[in-house]
Amino acid sequence: MISEWETLARMRRQDCKIFTLDAVQRRHPIRGDESEFAVINSPAWVNIIPITRAGEVLLIRQYRHGSDSITLEIPGGLVNEGEDPAIAAQRECREETGYASGQDAILLGSHLPNPAFLNNTCYAYLWRDCMPVGAQRFDEHEEIEVLAVPMAQVDDLIKRGEIRHSLVLTAFFFYMLQNGSLQ
Amino acid sequence: MISEWETLARMRRQDCKIFTLDAVQRRHPIRGDESEFAVINSPAWVNIIPITRAGEVLLIRQYRHGSDSITLEIPGGLVNEGEDPAIAAQRECREETGYASGQDAILLGSHLPNPAFLNNTCYAYLWRDCMPVGAQRFDEHEEIEVLAVPMAQVDDLIKRGEIRHSLVLTAFFFYMLQNGSLQ
Repeated sequence: MISEWETLARMRRQDCKIFTLDAVQRRHPIRGDESEFAVINSPAWVNIIPITRAGEVLLIRQYRHGSDSITLEIPGGLVNEGEDPAIAAQRECREETGYASGQDAILLGSHLPNPAFLNNTCYAYLWRDCMPVGAQRFDEHEEIEVLAVPMAQVDDLIKRGEIRHSLVLTAFFFYMLQNGSLQ
Repeated sequence: MISEWETLARMRRQDCKIFTLDAVQRRHPIRGDESEFAVINSPAWVNIIPITRAGEVLLIRQYRHGSDSITLEIPGGLVNEGEDPAIAAQRECREETGYASGQDAILLGSHLPNPAFLNNTCYAYLWRDCMPVGAQRFDEHEEIEVLAVPMAQVDDLIKRGEIRHSLVLTAFFFYMLQNGSLQ
């Protein structure tokens, strides 16, 4: 039988823009041992698979400061305080690609980016019938290139290692489980 | 055209057990704007889908300090300095489940856990023909329950939200892309 640890104290160690780092003091309820664990707190994350009227997926290329490399992803970002995750996902798509849809985004599933030390949840959406509605709107320091590719090419982009972001891969996995294939 | 930023300086902010947090000063090579970005450095991570001689997948249940909850996952962990990721994955499986195989683990693929602020890569493996070889060996504070389930049930465990760890889902996605289904 696995036990949940008791939280005794939580100390803020760092406040970064996109997350905070806490040292959390916890005790095992049965064994009684205590220790300090590093926990990164972040708001919920969202990402979204936008599909155009022509049946193409919108992918984005951008420089990423963690990997220090240019990655191929789907739109996504942080959920603002009090914001509905579906609205956040649609907002990120609109800002990062300049595309939007008159339909509502559909929740594909939610997942835990890394429960070992991250506290948050990521929500993956599908947004059908997207079309260009205006210019991209970048956050500070953002620079994003948009590519429209047939869904049937996504399998190949993953196998060739072009799409490597775990959270993006998870969104496509949810899509595949619901649709039977990446088509 | 997307540019890679130039790294000007890197300051260590925190040294936690499983990662370090840096503030990285970078400049855009064309626009010339400079800013500080939070980057978490971690060794490579591995996870592994162990399949028993009876064709069952070994899953593990454990308490996770990030999500403050008990999760259902596959074995995995950090790659030690100088360690081959395949050896690390096999070692984690042996330690966490008490199972091992005489065969070599097969690389399913590698992915980036979160290129936005994490620097590292996760390697996903498949290990066939696993059998019990001894008792589990836990790291400090670890407590792990092992479950053997038919691969055909994994789809259902994901759809019911029992398996929610993004990196574990990515390993099963790679498995599905190579095998055509979760069978």
